[in-house]
Amino acid sequence: MNVPGTFTLGPGDGNARTGCLTTAHGDVETPIFMPVGTQGTVKSLCPTDLHDLKAQIILGNTYHLYLRPGDELVAKLGGLHRFMGWDGPILTDSGGFQVFSLSGLRQIAEEGVTFSSHIDGSRHLFSPEKVIAIQQNLGSDIMMVLDECVPYGADRAYTEKSLALTTRWARRCRQAHPGGHRGQLLFGIVQGGFFKDLRAESAAQLLEIGFDGYALGGLSVGESREEMYDILGDATPLLPADRPRYLMGVGAPRDLLAGMAAGIDMFDCVLPTRNARNGTLFTFQGKVNIKRAEYREDDTPLDPTCPCYACQTFSKAYLRHLYVARELLSYRLNTLHNLTFFSIMMERARQAIRDGRFAAFRAEMEAVYPTDEEQTEE
Amino acid sequence: MNVPGTFTLGPGDGNARTGCLTTAHGDVETPIFMPVGTQGTVKSLCPTDLHDLKAQIILGNTYHLYLRPGDELVAKLGGLHRFMGWDGPILTDSGGFQVFSLSGLRQIAEEGVTFSSHIDGSRHLFSPEKVIAIQQNLGSDIMMVLDECVPYGADRAYTEKSLALTTRWARRCRQAHPGGHRGQLLFGIVQGGFFKDLRAESAAQLLEIGFDGYALGGLSVGESREEMYDILGDATPLLPADRPRYLMGVGAPRDLLAGMAAGIDMFDCVLPTRNARNGTLFTFQGKVNIKRAEYREDDTPLDPTCPCYACQTFSKAYLRHLYVARELLSYRLNTLHNLTFFSIMMERARQAIRDGRFAAFRAEMEAVYPTDEEQTEE
Repeated sequence: MNVPGTFTLGPGDGNARTGCLTTAHGDVETPIFMPVGTQGTVKSLCPTDLHDLKAQIILGNTYHLYLRPGDELVAKLGGLHRFMGWDGPILTDSGGFQVFSLSGLRQIAEEGVTFSSHIDGSRHLFSPEKVIAIQQNLGSDIMMVLDECVPYGADRAYTEKSLALTTRWARRCRQAHPGGHRGQLLFGIVQGGFFKDLRAESAAQLLEIGFDGYALGGLSVGESREEMYDILGDATPLLPADRPRYLMGVGAPRDLLAGMAAGIDMFDCVLPTRNARNGTLFTFQGKVNIKRAEYREDDTPLDPTCPCYACQTFSKAYLRHLYVARELLSYRLNTLHNLTFFSIMMERARQAIRDGRFAAFRAEMEAVYPTDEEQTEE
Repeated sequence: MNVPGTFTLGPGDGNARTGCLTTAHGDVETPIFMPVGTQGTVKSLCPTDLHDLKAQIILGNTYHLYLRPGDELVAKLGGLHRFMGWDGPILTDSGGFQVFSLSGLRQIAEEGVTFSSHIDGSRHLFSPEKVIAIQQNLGSDIMMVLDECVPYGADRAYTEKSLALTTRWARRCRQAHPGGHRGQLLFGIVQGGFFKDLRAESAAQLLEIGFDGYALGGLSVGESREEMYDILGDATPLLPADRPRYLMGVGAPRDLLAGMAAGIDMFDCVLPTRNARNGTLFTFQGKVNIKRAEYREDDTPLDPTCPCYACQTFSKAYLRHLYVARELLSYRLNTLHNLTFFSIMMERARQAIRDGRFAAFRAEMEAVYPTDEEQTEE
């Protein structure tokens, strides 16, 4: 049994690579897509569903869990795994992204970021030390450092200043968690906006500090696909090859493929789960908007080749009915299906990389998911 | 294999009785509680969940399914069983109750009742022949006649006039479905408000027409528990002993016990499913309001003896968190638990009747569910 943090590379294909990351709650085959379980549940699914769809690792949100039910309560109840009944690996973000995107009144200072709860307006401080303590209480297998996610369009002066603070925060996070604590890994996050030299500077600073893995943050924040791919192609090689590389908040099929092609190992996004709740379903024949009238009398499964319970049991007509009637079962069946699709797509991608035919697989998937598809959807 | 409609009585205890009703989709052990699946789904649950909790028969609502997705569409897609992936017995109501309770502008005439859709305001007519045709399209195993559910407080003159119409409608329903059509059974509904002689008149008229089973309608409409029990005790013996007896819309544990004690075989109610979504959970130790602060740190299962997935997997603290956070999983776990409780309670009741100790079982349950409990909750 490998110690947590062990990362073994398997066969690669071009820059794309396969690997296996060991965590305190088991191994994760990479490249991997991580379903988002914001508040201690992947919305509408239970742990049995997650096992059925072969989810290997899920994500929890520090901001949400800190506010409700509270990280100290979760610790008292045995940690997030026990609390939510999920025995597989969990990655938690630092809460920074939510603070910057959800919270209205926020103040950034050297100490950390002060923000208002979206639940009751109460004021809170997230410092580097605080977000580490919270994630230690949650007991996640992979923790993320506190960073400032620079808004799209920020100028060079703002981005430089922000990056310097992000690096100082990263160093304080590492100091607060020198390693070893219950096998919890700590990943650094490369920022630097859309300035390539700042991205390089950020990566070099994080490498000097030393982390168990490295993420690219601040992408998929409103830029064009071309801009994102440009930074992705440039910044990914700056991350050490022997450590897992994580592209944060990216989840459109086309972007996962671009990420893998650049050498990324881990992804997370609310896209498959949020789209499920909006009636947008992913199949290997393309996206299906289940509310469309054309499915009203459609007695065929959404995807006859899909092993998920929704496709094995129900017709598109029934899925449409549930969606139109706003039935609770609609959210669950749609979520189960979309995450099954993402799970299978990633398994196929891993196999394609192992077989040295990743470019062909990517082209095949891109034909089904053309460029006009939304990057992330609300 | 018995033909649909066969009803075999087992051991009884006082007026309480056990039995087995054969339908075209299998046998139902009575007394039975039927979960309500209004729009082609028991809210938040899938058929696998229903099998897990040993649901033997579920209810569908004609009014809702007629409006959406439409009974003709359901017929085209192979009937309600196939549409919703449930291979067990289904009972459908006539739609009358919903028309009288949900629909604002409604007009009663000899022909039937004209009403406005709650979805788009469109005007529709439910005649006796129409509700039979709809239920034939749905393909339910047990169909109900169209009746007028007299509002609580209606005077004798109104009730007499309404009963006469209800009886004429019942006769037209029987004529529209003389029997045999795909094994679909047809039940009559005793009305007559809170006038015992009118109840007797209604029962005699229905018996003369002849149905596969007989229901008591127009109870649990706002009357006191004493009034309901009075009518229940008086009217149940008017129903033939060799046919299943169904008490409509009643579901509080105390009322199920009173119904069984009077000789009722079948019940339905939204209470366990609706209460689940409101965070009120049933256990053999009494009702639990899961949102209460006392459960915030409670690491114990809701009911350690309950075999449901929620009790076997999660703590009360987690169930509370899901409820407070309005997570979709909350509705499902709570519903799964409440229906499991009702399923087990009814199984225990059947066993108590077989063992000749029903009175003791009833007293035991009444101690846990005292009289101040709400009869039906919104």
